[in-house]
Amino acid sequence: MRATVIYGERDIRLDEVADPKLSSGGDAIVRVVAACVCGSDLWPYRGVTPTTEPHRIGHEFVGIVQEIGPDVQTVAVGDFVIAPFYDCDNTCVNCRNGVSTSCLNGGWWGSEDKFGGFADGAQGELVRVPHADGSLVATPQMPEAEQVPGLLTLADVMGTGHHAAVSAGVTLGSTVVVVGDGAVGLCAIIAAKRLGASRIVAMSRHADRQALALEFGATDIVEERGDEGVARIREMFDGIGADCILECVGTKESMDQAIRSARPGGMVGYVGAPNGGPELPVRSLFNRNVGVNGGVASVRGYIEELLPEVLSGEIDPGRVFDLQLPLADVAEAYAAMDERRAIKVLLRP
Amino acid sequence: MRATVIYGERDIRLDEVADPKLSSGGDAIVRVVAACVCGSDLWPYRGVTPTTEPHRIGHEFVGIVQEIGPDVQTVAVGDFVIAPFYDCDNTCVNCRNGVSTSCLNGGWWGSEDKFGGFADGAQGELVRVPHADGSLVATPQMPEAEQVPGLLTLADVMGTGHHAAVSAGVTLGSTVVVVGDGAVGLCAIIAAKRLGASRIVAMSRHADRQALALEFGATDIVEERGDEGVARIREMFDGIGADCILECVGTKESMDQAIRSARPGGMVGYVGAPNGGPELPVRSLFNRNVGVNGGVASVRGYIEELLPEVLSGEIDPGRVFDLQLPLADVAEAYAAMDERRAIKVLLRP
Repeated sequence: MRATVIYGERDIRLDEVADPKLSSGGDAIVRVVAACVCGSDLWPYRGVTPTTEPHRIGHEFVGIVQEIGPDVQTVAVGDFVIAPFYDCDNTCVNCRNGVSTSCLNGGWWGSEDKFGGFADGAQGELVRVPHADGSLVATPQMPEAEQVPGLLTLADVMGTGHHAAVSAGVTLGSTVVVVGDGAVGLCAIIAAKRLGASRIVAMSRHADRQALALEFGATDIVEERGDEGVARIREMFDGIGADCILECVGTKESMDQAIRSARPGGMVGYVGAPNGGPELPVRSLFNRNVGVNGGVASVRGYIEELLPEVLSGEIDPGRVFDLQLPLADVAEAYAAMDERRAIKVLLRP
Repeated sequence: MRATVIYGERDIRLDEVADPKLSSGGDAIVRVVAACVCGSDLWPYRGVTPTTEPHRIGHEFVGIVQEIGPDVQTVAVGDFVIAPFYDCDNTCVNCRNGVSTSCLNGGWWGSEDKFGGFADGAQGELVRVPHADGSLVATPQMPEAEQVPGLLTLADVMGTGHHAAVSAGVTLGSTVVVVGDGAVGLCAIIAAKRLGASRIVAMSRHADRQALALEFGATDIVEERGDEGVARIREMFDGIGADCILECVGTKESMDQAIRSARPGGMVGYVGAPNGGPELPVRSLFNRNVGVNGGVASVRGYIEELLPEVLSGEIDPGRVFDLQLPLADVAEAYAAMDERRAIKVLLRP
């Protein structure tokens, strides 16, 4: 089969690799219908995270079950399935606590899983899915083609935006600021709206993203950043800031923006992978009682909640895909996102 | 009147100072019945926070209203009142949001308030209280002498322990670890128990504090610290850690202990003033979805909730005072706490 391999900085290739094989009683082989490029894939692409040797890449996909192990019970050959950006058994104590990204038996696409060998990266034609019963969620019926982008967002960005909103405690009447206008930030707007936020500020400087933010439910746009951005936000909310800040970037600057935009007693829900690890300024958090909650989003547990609204069209997160390319053009997909020519690129094998 | 002044490292004196005077329509003069020494008073006492010039010190007191300004409505001369460790109007947007420590018009004992001049430190005979209507809570009747220590804890340590528990989201059935066996940590045990925690681990190495912790509701004692402490806690809770960690110290080591003792998806409620400001390790918080919430405790808002249980004896936080001294012995009070001969010292003018 063909699968995407990263060789180094800005060196993405579609290679011919061995087809995956079932290797334990509970896994499944899924034929990928759609995959995509994640903002976090750009860290190795840009060389910020060094690539020491070529390896598979990608972690978001939907597809059709091609083969299952004898122990698999909840999905069947021919099912259309959504996979979260990690595998999990969905039964261990961490999964039961709603933190399936810390599954005691889970793993990550493109690496060895703990039991059955290699789990393919998702930007390819086939993926071996460990713990298929835990990891995969089948749609009630075969979706229409136009539903596929929305379903694909449940693999990561929609669930991750939702995690930001849940972690920040967004509820009926909350005032919300979303830091970051990438796919996750835009999905966080959808999430905040469906949780009942009364006002949602999108911090964005890009006209196309501003437009989508407003369509998704943002009530205000703020273009300023840094001190000016903080001043604007405070001015909008009683001079003190907003209840809930959804941090969807992961840089030192964006986290600083988020923390200072929160009102005393407010909460930052953060899902931007902290690349390089800016530390949090505990004294300023302490003085203003600003909490920080979130992390690598346990999207598996959100799929059942969000799926009906995606299928019904009540929410339309698939619109974050503003470019669709054949898998053969995966290198161009990375370039388009790197150069901000696209918010998020969908790949079809 | 006599009032406590800190001159420098380990130099605490009881000085003769001018009596306070009413200086605005809304303030009150309170005759102190009992005050105490706070763990945070030990930072300047030990020279960790430098004392550049002599200044009043103390911020916890209860007393009897001696005089009120013409605008004061909720307390009357002769009332027994509890003051939080700060003054606040209890009407501004931050107070309404439950964060009265960020009151837009508030201030701190022993410093200039924004309107009426100097607000005395509490380790003295009289205190001018700005915003008397907002700051003070009168007891329904004159308390018995043995109730005074419990009431005094509502000025700070009981409310602060409660804030740790609330910030960590302690609720029915929560598993809880309390880091710190000082007065706040011990009160946090009381708070966790009354909020319904199913298991409460006190991390303590001192026999007398362990005994009080168990009487207050701790179900387990852990003496280990650092890696061994984390290993013990994880072993006790499914190998993953506890739901809620109440951090009641404020050092880098105690915060590290707290963060690593939380299970994935758990929450650290922290109230220990971060002295010198250890920064929070965002990557390890992110990877395990451990949240951090809390700060300088808005105890004013908790007084009404906790007061009935203190008066009825249902909770008995006053037991944290294991030494009572006349105000004249204030220097010895500091020494006793500094040398850990006392958990917390109550002072009577």
